[in-house]
Amino acid sequence: MLLTELERFKDEDSGYNDISSSIVPDCKVQAEVIAKEDGVVAGLAEAAQVFEYFKVLSTTEFTDGSSIKRNDVLFVLDGGAQSILKAERLALNFLGRMSGIATMTRKYVEQAGNVRIACTRKTTPGFRKFEKKAVIAGGGDPHRFNLSDAVMIKDNHIAVLGLEKAVKKAKTMASFTQKIEVEVETVDDAVLAAGSGVDIIMFDNMTVDKIKESIKSISKKGLRGGIILEASGGISLENIDEYARCGVDVISAGALTHSSRWLDISMRIK
Amino acid sequence: MLLTELERFKDEDSGYNDISSSIVPDCKVQAEVIAKEDGVVAGLAEAAQVFEYFKVLSTTEFTDGSSIKRNDVLFVLDGGAQSILKAERLALNFLGRMSGIATMTRKYVEQAGNVRIACTRKTTPGFRKFEKKAVIAGGGDPHRFNLSDAVMIKDNHIAVLGLEKAVKKAKTMASFTQKIEVEVETVDDAVLAAGSGVDIIMFDNMTVDKIKESIKSISKKGLRGGIILEASGGISLENIDEYARCGVDVISAGALTHSSRWLDISMRIK
Amino acid sequence: MLLTELERFKDEDSGYNDISSSIVPDCKVQAEVIAKEDGVVAGLAEAAQVFEYFKVLSTTEFTDGSSIKRNDVLFVLDGGAQSILKAERLALNFLGRMSGIATMTRKYVEQAGNVRIACTRKTTPGFRKFEKKAVIAGGGDPHRFNLSDAVMIKDNHIAVLGLEKAVKKAKTMASFTQKIEVEVETVDDAVLAAGSGVDIIMFDNMTVDKIKESIKSISKKGLRGGIILEASGGISLENIDEYARCGVDVISAGALTHSSRWLDISMRIK
Amino acid sequence: MLLTELERFKDEDSGYNDISSSIVPDCKVQAEVIAKEDGVVAGLAEAAQVFEYFKVLSTTEFTDGSSIKRNDVLFVLDGGAQSILKAERLALNFLGRMSGIATMTRKYVEQAGNVRIACTRKTTPGFRKFEKKAVIAGGGDPHRFNLSDAVMIKDNHIAVLGLEKAVKKAKTMASFTQKIEVEVETVDDAVLAAGSGVDIIMFDNMTVDKIKESIKSISKKGLRGGIILEASGGISLENIDEYARCGVDVISAGALTHSSRWLDISMRIK
Amino acid sequence: MLLTELERFKDEDSGYNDISSSIVPDCKVQAEVIAKEDGVVAGLAEAAQVFEYFKVLSTTEFTDGSSIKRNDVLFVLDGGAQSILKAERLALNFLGRMSGIATMTRKYVEQAGNVRIACTRKTTPGFRKFEKKAVIAGGGDPHRFNLSDAVMIKDNHIAVLGLEKAVKKAKTMASFTQKIEVEVETVDDAVLAAGSGVDIIMFDNMTVDKIKESIKSISKKGLRGGIILEASGGISLENIDEYARCGVDVISAGALTHSSRWLDISMRIK
Amino acid sequence: MLLTELERFKDEDSGYNDISSSIVPDCKVQAEVIAKEDGVVAGLAEAAQVFEYFKVLSTTEFTDGSSIKRNDVLFVLDGGAQSILKAERLALNFLGRMSGIATMTRKYVEQAGNVRIACTRKTTPGFRKFEKKAVIAGGGDPHRFNLSDAVMIKDNHIAVLGLEKAVKKAKTMASFTQKIEVEVETVDDAVLAAGSGVDIIMFDNMTVDKIKESIKSISKKGLRGGIILEASGGISLENIDEYARCGVDVISAGALTHSSRWLDISMRIK
Repeated sequence: MLLTELERFKDEDSGYNDISSSIVPDCKVQAEVIAKEDGVVAGLAEAAQVFEYFKVLSTTEFTDGSSIKRNDVLFVLDGGAQSILKAERLALNFLGRMSGIATMTRKYVEQAGNVRIACTRKTTPGFRKFEKKAVIAGGGDPHRFNLSDAVMIKDNHIAVLGLEKAVKKAKTMASFTQKIEVEVETVDDAVLAAGSGVDIIMFDNMTVDKIKESIKSISKKGLRGGIILEASGGISLENIDEYARCGVDVISAGALTHSSRWLDISMRIK
Repeated sequence: MLLTELERFKDEDSGYNDISSSIVPDCKVQAEVIAKEDGVVAGLAEAAQVFEYFKVLSTTEFTDGSSIKRNDVLFVLDGGAQSILKAERLALNFLGRMSGIATMTRKYVEQAGNVRIACTRKTTPGFRKFEKKAVIAGGGDPHRFNLSDAVMIKDNHIAVLGLEKAVKKAKTMASFTQKIEVEVETVDDAVLAAGSGVDIIMFDNMTVDKIKESIKSISKKGLRGGIILEASGGISLENIDEYARCGVDVISAGALTHSSRWLDISMRIK
Repeated sequence: MLLTELERFKDEDSGYNDISSSIVPDCKVQAEVIAKEDGVVAGLAEAAQVFEYFKVLSTTEFTDGSSIKRNDVLFVLDGGAQSILKAERLALNFLGRMSGIATMTRKYVEQAGNVRIACTRKTTPGFRKFEKKAVIAGGGDPHRFNLSDAVMIKDNHIAVLGLEKAVKKAKTMASFTQKIEVEVETVDDAVLAAGSGVDIIMFDNMTVDKIKESIKSISKKGLRGGIILEASGGISLENIDEYARCGVDVISAGALTHSSRWLDISMRIK
Repeated sequence: MLLTELERFKDEDSGYNDISSSIVPDCKVQAEVIAKEDGVVAGLAEAAQVFEYFKVLSTTEFTDGSSIKRNDVLFVLDGGAQSILKAERLALNFLGRMSGIATMTRKYVEQAGNVRIACTRKTTPGFRKFEKKAVIAGGGDPHRFNLSDAVMIKDNHIAVLGLEKAVKKAKTMASFTQKIEVEVETVDDAVLAAGSGVDIIMFDNMTVDKIKESIKSISKKGLRGGIILEASGGISLENIDEYARCGVDVISAGALTHSSRWLDISMRIK
Repeated sequence: MLLTELERFKDEDSGYNDISSSIVPDCKVQAEVIAKEDGVVAGLAEAAQVFEYFKVLSTTEFTDGSSIKRNDVLFVLDGGAQSILKAERLALNFLGRMSGIATMTRKYVEQAGNVRIACTRKTTPGFRKFEKKAVIAGGGDPHRFNLSDAVMIKDNHIAVLGLEKAVKKAKTMASFTQKIEVEVETVDDAVLAAGSGVDIIMFDNMTVDKIKESIKSISKKGLRGGIILEASGGISLENIDEYARCGVDVISAGALTHSSRWLDISMRIK
Repeated sequence: MLLTELERFKDEDSGYNDISSSIVPDCKVQAEVIAKEDGVVAGLAEAAQVFEYFKVLSTTEFTDGSSIKRNDVLFVLDGGAQSILKAERLALNFLGRMSGIATMTRKYVEQAGNVRIACTRKTTPGFRKFEKKAVIAGGGDPHRFNLSDAVMIKDNHIAVLGLEKAVKKAKTMASFTQKIEVEVETVDDAVLAAGSGVDIIMFDNMTVDKIKESIKSISKKGLRGGIILEASGGISLENIDEYARCGVDVISAGALTHSSRWLDISMRIK
């Protein structure tokens, strides 16, 4: 994280005159960051950077993506009592939020077998890069970062322009370094898209049966090779098995970032 | 939100060259922001500001805190197709995240009767003010914003300094405009705290029975008046009823911000 | 101070191409920061941070709030001549402005006996936290930092809404962690305010006699306990004695920040 | 002022959740900004920009530098009551601080006759441009803005390098668009400086007699033409008359910015 | 461009007290932005935004990428004389720099026939998005924007890791939305790369003959389909013809941004 | 460069998830920054700061302004392979751009003999200070930095106000620390300007003959002393000899910044 970002976050949590931390003497103490439940850890680098900013020495035996168990000591900390108290909440907020996402992502990944799990742009404003990074830590795929990465033709684009025209225009405008993805909602559109030369087709809110039918039609036309197929929309841990076996390459789920709760992690001064 | 914040968020989501939105002609279209499920809406002002930034006209019949039903039209939008597509995800991310928090807060509030529901500092770095605002929209209390607001003496402060010394020092250092709160974990400490002249006592991870016992002891000593009592730690929608009837004034729950999923809200161009 | 702030201040004072400092060879020299008059020092941490930024070693025997005498050596500096010259003015501007405020605050504090001296929001835009910190160094109370801290109902609020309605609304909207203060200009309003359940009453521009009368009326109604009383408006070192003995708990004075001149502090290379 | 600056100042004064202003209904009201004492006004453009940011209509009959009298209405304001309350303190802080500087500058200017009055770099960090602007409004000269403007060889430079070497080096390094100024503390150095080809000589902390002697010597050598002479150090309203008649072109005084109190200006909702 | 960017650029060019522009009366005048030579225009949106910031009305008949002739009027401006003078240099700096790049890009594009012309990351720090945009205006391809877009395995990566291992690792780490490109310097490596499943191969500093030989070998192995071939390194307007006919899909040239001079464009008040 | 600037530039070039650099193991390697052609180096401090930011040890035997030869090793680098790869492009972009300007400036300087060579405000938005610094490295003069430095009365000012009025007003408004420059296009205006008391006269787009004629007229009136004469407009390496011998003190050329190509500098891991 940039130092300018860290300072913005620090300022948000500390304000101008932190009496709460100042009442303790700034004697050297040791503290531990402890997992209160099982999961997958993420945000270690961010937390370490926060500790370093406050001149607190931190050591960890884990790396982002490690499986952790309840009571695991994620960090051993050495530093002034005031500094540790000032750093505590900000470091834990990174760890809690990012590990929560990594933990849910890991569950999806484990259910999905060889199919790749991806997140979306449904992220907290200002915090996207950390949320995408947490998805990666959980074994997921960050998908495109923003609107200027891979070109993505969605329902609302098609509503305005039509699928074929939209793809054609995208191919003219996109850089040769970018992939073009198109969302489809019907079997017909899926076949149309496959024939139009896009790189990725996303089956948006389609049933497993409709997706299978689409893939069969695409394959029949010899268009399956060289196209990446993605399923999205309403896919949860309950129904992911079916989607994972229907022939797609990628399953994307907004839930990784918009429905994951934090992992419970806390700090205690010894 | 400050314009400088909005631009930072916009830049995060748009990047430098948004081809996806540019492929559609910038003709005037109408669009609707629609609730896909029941809940409590929040983030309307932020979404409206995003639309205004992109020169999209938005009108809404709701205000933050309104109960909304599936299929309710939260905004009617008029503007260029490109502009609406550029604004879409950022506006929805505010609405989804903030309404999710407001919706869960409302559930706590409804269960809690006359007891006030408050959130904590367990918030997404850089997004606290929006998350606190969403709690307020749901009928909750934002609690202190950061370390420089109300002084709060927590377990780790007491570990270093002891309760009485900590309170004494806090009273010397705090402004007369600030309240002083102390966390306690035992009945004895609760009574000690009540006698020390603090404004708020928080029962941290204590059972309902222990809290009742503490309140009884505090009252017996004639110290109940003028002190606000807060319960916190492991309180969820399952067990909130008990806590709400045990005699405290406030229940605080990190879950409002760290375990609420987004409310499902989407946009469709007509 | 945040590094981002320090760099903004540094850029303001240095510009892009500081020839004045560059003409001297960057040989190691020693320098001293010296008080040119008696007073109370503040801004030592800020000055030290400025020196550190320019890689100048600084040592001091003082802490913010120390009484200093003319010719006291506030800092001994070791570093490159160029670096010391680049740091000089910025470090001195912090020391001069902040020590000036601390010095005047100390005078008020000494006159006020047991009554607390507080500053206001009449501060230089962008420099409030340093000015409030200087007041604290002088022994004063920083009062609320900004509009989102303690709720304060002032003349203009009452002009629009009326005192009782304003207090009632504030009590509904304020967090349980916030205090509510109301400004009054008459004895009647003072009594009204005391009965309305606010935490702090400020006597705004009232004579000592009217304040005494108000306190007597409030006490007679048994409302004095649990309320903090503040006097403000036109209180200077000339008339502070009377106010300090009229029964209030706090005296606030904009003068601490808007009428204090700088303390004379300079630097000399040896 | 840049919008990014205004938002930084606004954020400092408002925080995230201004309940104090929110308790009043946002009905249209009229308000006035009123001078509570005589002086010279400055900061009108800044205040107007603050009002505009909050969508408050402001009109004024004054311009920066106007003489104002007690009870003069500096602005008539029309806008929502909440907006006016949110804007109030920030606008007044600009007006109070800047008018205070302009008022003191005007007093110096009036005493100085044809001699120019200039300020220094002794300014509040982050607020220099507004303080220099206030000096201009009062009829003063802003002197160089920062270290990268006119080259200035001061006591500490000379301590390291010697006067002649310093001037020589400065002439090599300075742009042809920059003036070179040198501080002297003795008659001998003054003559030396005049012969070295600098543009400006500043008599630093020299008595009126020593300055007169220096000027005589310089004139005798035929070096007076083309050199600007500046007196500085300990010049106040008490002794400025003498300095103003001793033959210098400019008198600079840190007091304009470091010892001027604010002008008393307030706002009242009608 | 973000408003925060525009203000940063404006502040750079204006400083705090622009006397040069202030000496003219702020009467309404008309002015014209005029091409002093033939070329391709770019930066019109940026210039228009600068004029709007200064409240200058601007109208243009051109769009980015238009061919322009000497004496063409690029903008007609209406506004205050001061405002136009303040805006002039910043607007012209955008137009001059961006049109220069667009003009040189157009020359490459015209020589290259069906082969796409792309730029690189050799851009002025802080100005990349405008330089890439200028390349697009000239008909070129912006290539990847930064290190987090398409994965690119370059000589220095291969030096550390070897080509095959590098590609393998990249395929594991890259998102399915990203393309993978690899630089090769020999025919053998080209074939190796083509067989490794990358999306783009860049012939780095290879002769036309070696490139032809590589393509022949790749085609013989049936690997030409689905791979984009890019030539780079020392390609200028002198030798581009050969490269454009050697069978590659893309030619990239750092020269578009690092060796293009500005187009001569100026402003004149009528 | 400020750290906040460096981070902005770094973020531009790296983005949020640099896979390209992450595929290599972060083993310690050595690398060299090498000149690919002869020239004058500039930007060494900036490059060194970039390397330091990425914790890469850098050593150089050159200083800004050194003449360098093809194959000279400008930096020896020691650090992690990933860190070196992340730092590479940003460091090279500073070196390439700044050395290109320094190299062209040196050519002008060598042709100009005793006449000073200056650049203009025709610089890349946001990068001016580095471009001016590069001109200085090449032996040139940075001219005024922005509109608030030396006052400059240009064609468009004169078009609105007339030369004499403009100079008069400028003299009233300018600080005594600022020089005043005026652009003239005719011999008559040159004489007029010389008599008006300005510090610098710039012959704008005038032929060598007309400049000589102007200087003769100015000298005849005894006004040559104390005025700096500058020639500007269409001066290139082809015709600079004539201008350098026509009697002016300074030649300014936008070409130094707007028409210099980068110097070819690259990095190679050993």
